[in-house]
Amino acid sequence: MYRIALRLEYDGASFFGWQIQKDRRTVQGEIENALEIILKEKISLFGSGRTDTGVHAENQIAHFESFRKIDRKELIRSLNGILTSDIRVLEVAKVADDFHARFCAISRTYRYQITNQPKAIGRSFWWHIRYPLQIQTLHQCAEMILGEHDFTSFSKANPDLNNRQCTINESQWQKVENTLIYRVAANRFLHHLVRNLVGTMTEVARGKLSSEEFRSLLENPVENANVYRAPAQGLILERVDY
Amino acid sequence: MYRIALRLEYDGASFFGWQIQKDRRTVQGEIENALEIILKEKISLFGSGRTDTGVHAENQIAHFESFRKIDRKELIRSLNGILTSDIRVLEVAKVADDFHARFCAISRTYRYQITNQPKAIGRSFWWHIRYPLQIQTLHQCAEMILGEHDFTSFSKANPDLNNRQCTINESQWQKVENTLIYRVAANRFLHHLVRNLVGTMTEVARGKLSSEEFRSLLENPVENANVYRAPAQGLILERVDY
Repeated sequence: MYRIALRLEYDGASFFGWQIQKDRRTVQGEIENALEIILKEKISLFGSGRTDTGVHAENQIAHFESFRKIDRKELIRSLNGILTSDIRVLEVAKVADDFHARFCAISRTYRYQITNQPKAIGRSFWWHIRYPLQIQTLHQCAEMILGEHDFTSFSKANPDLNNRQCTINESQWQKVENTLIYRVAANRFLHHLVRNLVGTMTEVARGKLSSEEFRSLLENPVENANVYRAPAQGLILERVDY
Repeated sequence: MYRIALRLEYDGASFFGWQIQKDRRTVQGEIENALEIILKEKISLFGSGRTDTGVHAENQIAHFESFRKIDRKELIRSLNGILTSDIRVLEVAKVADDFHARFCAISRTYRYQITNQPKAIGRSFWWHIRYPLQIQTLHQCAEMILGEHDFTSFSKANPDLNNRQCTINESQWQKVENTLIYRVAANRFLHHLVRNLVGTMTEVARGKLSSEEFRSLLENPVENANVYRAPAQGLILERVDY
């Protein structure tokens, strides 16, 4: 068996997320289908992580196994020929037999994009916020979450997870002209974590919530906490490190 | 009468260009229609220039006259409420009675975006070229066109124009990672000029045409010359100066 990794970019707008689902258009489903057409065998594709409905990826990593010896350039060409233009295969690599796109990843980086000016060009990759946000408050919240914390308050309730600790290695807001970009890197991410962090931070930054309330959500983990969720369209999986 | 200027951004993908046409969705048509709904009077909108089908604008300037005194913030809000999300009004300003979006413009800047790596995110704003381009050759061609020239060879034949001289003040290629960005500023642009310049320069940069042939097209203006046209989707009107 040959183990092959793919580096992928996708515009999540027209997908029901990464994970394959019956009768729904998903990124995993589209790529498995294209691989099966090309390789004429049953393919199981493993991604570094699932992205939700509407979430984008600039660099998603996935792997699969095949009985066939693969020509890398030819596979890129055939996949991009079959796939619709909202998924592009950027790279194909032969990887070691013990490589696993999900379990070998040591860090994932997400970017969240907010604009204060309405946008026509690239509008499906930004959250447009009309009210002003205090950048100092955003910096303060971003710094609070650095390091290891239990993020139960900021993630979707999930009885199957016995541990909601994540180690945040980067958490930073950047103001560029009329936009605010948040970048967060961690060893793992829980369901809805980035969107809940961004949504709740922006509530603090517009004065609807205090930084003490934000800190309390972090220090006193509870399920179904009263947090705010930013829309999916501003979220982009930026990179995965191994 | 009050004279009002608009600063506009649009994603040209779903428009038959700027100029109003019967039974076709155009940027001018959509905005005149929205203004007429809001102001309840017949409106004529004048743009700084026409963009073709599929061409985008980050900063298009247009003006109109109205009998009504206008609240600028309210007009932005109502226009953006009526218009579809592929046109956004960024700014509304009261201007002097002799201001004319087209005739007062002293310079327009266009940007053309080429990517060598396939793109999913923002794919409708880039021309994807698979073959490598010699950046030195692009620089050479770009420099040749600086200053005043007769651009008949690079523009669409048009018997109504008795002069095809344009003064190019900026003409520059920039390589950023896997992308090539061309920026060109001039006092005026002829029909298809930027796309024909970009298309022909890239033919030189891939070795299909010599720089001497490019120079000859510039120095010996002829109608219906054998030039190459880059696709509309990579072209963006970046700014207009007054």
